[in-house]
Amino acid sequence: MIHRVVFIGAGNLATRLSHALSAKGLDVIQVYSRTAASARNLATQLDSAYTTRPRDIKTGADAYFVALTDAGWGKVLPSIDFGEGLVVHCSGSMPLSALEKYAANRGVLYPLQTFSKNRLLPFQEIPVFVEADSKKNEKILLELAGKISDTVSLLDSEKRLVLHIAAVFACNFVNHFYTLASEILESRGISFDVLKPLIMETAGKVLEMAPPEAQTGPAVRFDQNVIVKHLEALDAFPEKKELYHIISKSIFEHQQKNGL
Amino acid sequence: MIHRVVFIGAGNLATRLSHALSAKGLDVIQVYSRTAASARNLATQLDSAYTTRPRDIKTGADAYFVALTDAGWGKVLPSIDFGEGLVVHCSGSMPLSALEKYAANRGVLYPLQTFSKNRLLPFQEIPVFVEADSKKNEKILLELAGKISDTVSLLDSEKRLVLHIAAVFACNFVNHFYTLASEILESRGISFDVLKPLIMETAGKVLEMAPPEAQTGPAVRFDQNVIVKHLEALDAFPEKKELYHIISKSIFEHQQKNGL
Repeated sequence: MIHRVVFIGAGNLATRLSHALSAKGLDVIQVYSRTAASARNLATQLDSAYTTRPRDIKTGADAYFVALTDAGWGKVLPSIDFGEGLVVHCSGSMPLSALEKYAANRGVLYPLQTFSKNRLLPFQEIPVFVEADSKKNEKILLELAGKISDTVSLLDSEKRLVLHIAAVFACNFVNHFYTLASEILESRGISFDVLKPLIMETAGKVLEMAPPEAQTGPAVRFDQNVIVKHLEALDAFPEKKELYHIISKSIFEHQQKNGL
Repeated sequence: MIHRVVFIGAGNLATRLSHALSAKGLDVIQVYSRTAASARNLATQLDSAYTTRPRDIKTGADAYFVALTDAGWGKVLPSIDFGEGLVVHCSGSMPLSALEKYAANRGVLYPLQTFSKNRLLPFQEIPVFVEADSKKNEKILLELAGKISDTVSLLDSEKRLVLHIAAVFACNFVNHFYTLASEILESRGISFDVLKPLIMETAGKVLEMAPPEAQTGPAVRFDQNVIVKHLEALDAFPEKKELYHIISKSIFEHQQKNGL
């Protein structure tokens, strides 16, 4: 049974996950972050201790949640004595085996979502993917994950990496196209608000239809008249013009390939 | 007052718009489409006549809605005698002036949404943009648009083109990244369903936050460790690898530019 936990990292993911665990009765005894303000801020919210020094991370916790950037691991983890504590990382692209040199008991708890510090989400609805180094730790982690999420699955490291890449396409890249669209509108003093119903419908459609079936617009119709006009209008925005060209070509090629 | 209308085109947009107008008491007296099945199908739904021959399009209607691909105009419109009827096109990228050679009374009614034939949407929530060749026709179109939508604005042709381009980025390109994500998952037998909460939250976030503030993921953090792993894993998918590289670079450059 996991009860006393330490959070290593105080970013968006650490903030939301620690709150979710705390709400289910777990005791977050300490928060570590490189930056004092982040560590203090999260620790205050959770009524826990905090530190900015890896060697002051408490021994004897039941579990340690590692929610650092992948690049941060080497600077922090070697200094910590995890003892028999279950060390759980939350990274999509780190294999479970990356914890071998640091910890005797290892696991992964990967919530698939985009986290912003000031946006509260019902954690219960977030799909959580779990992996562990033994059947015993797997059982412990599945039970823990089941407390905070309605959708818990086992997933190995290789598939988790693939899932993370797909998430980058469906979330980070998608959001970047929202950014580009907002810049295009801004250039003519049009409010980004006008796009919001379209954005929600575009997302809502793929809850019911496969994305290739949901595709509309000039590229999928190979509507050269429109494409040429759009490219001309983007002359003043070379980066957006190039992306328009590349993505339209990709849409058209997929359409051909799928024989739609 | 517009009462008797003809629809020229029977695609997704024509289908949804004609239903919305019909529900508000307008009489769709005829549907034209190049393909008999499409014309018959929509005409049956609306209890109207149909034709596949441009020269058989009825004279004397109050308004004619042109919902063809831009490339289709030249094959259809020159054969029609519009008389004093108000000819209204629904294209984002055609200027109002493109109707000058065909019609004496001209307007644009542009609903900003992605339409699929079998997906019913409350038209009332769709932003509609209107333009006309005279104050009189503008008033007529504003009144008509106000019956079917809660959000009606005047917008000139140049800005409508910009809006259409932004919509391509925020809808068509976004949907293409959903397609690419689904293909990545499919390659490892993972269901697209796992991404759905992430997709909805990514869209939902920008209702409240500006897109650059909503950005998360390896590119915006310049997390080289993760980016390199993702690119390696995409070796088997050269097109996706190239897009990953290009979009990540663009995200990072925007981040630098905005000083976030």
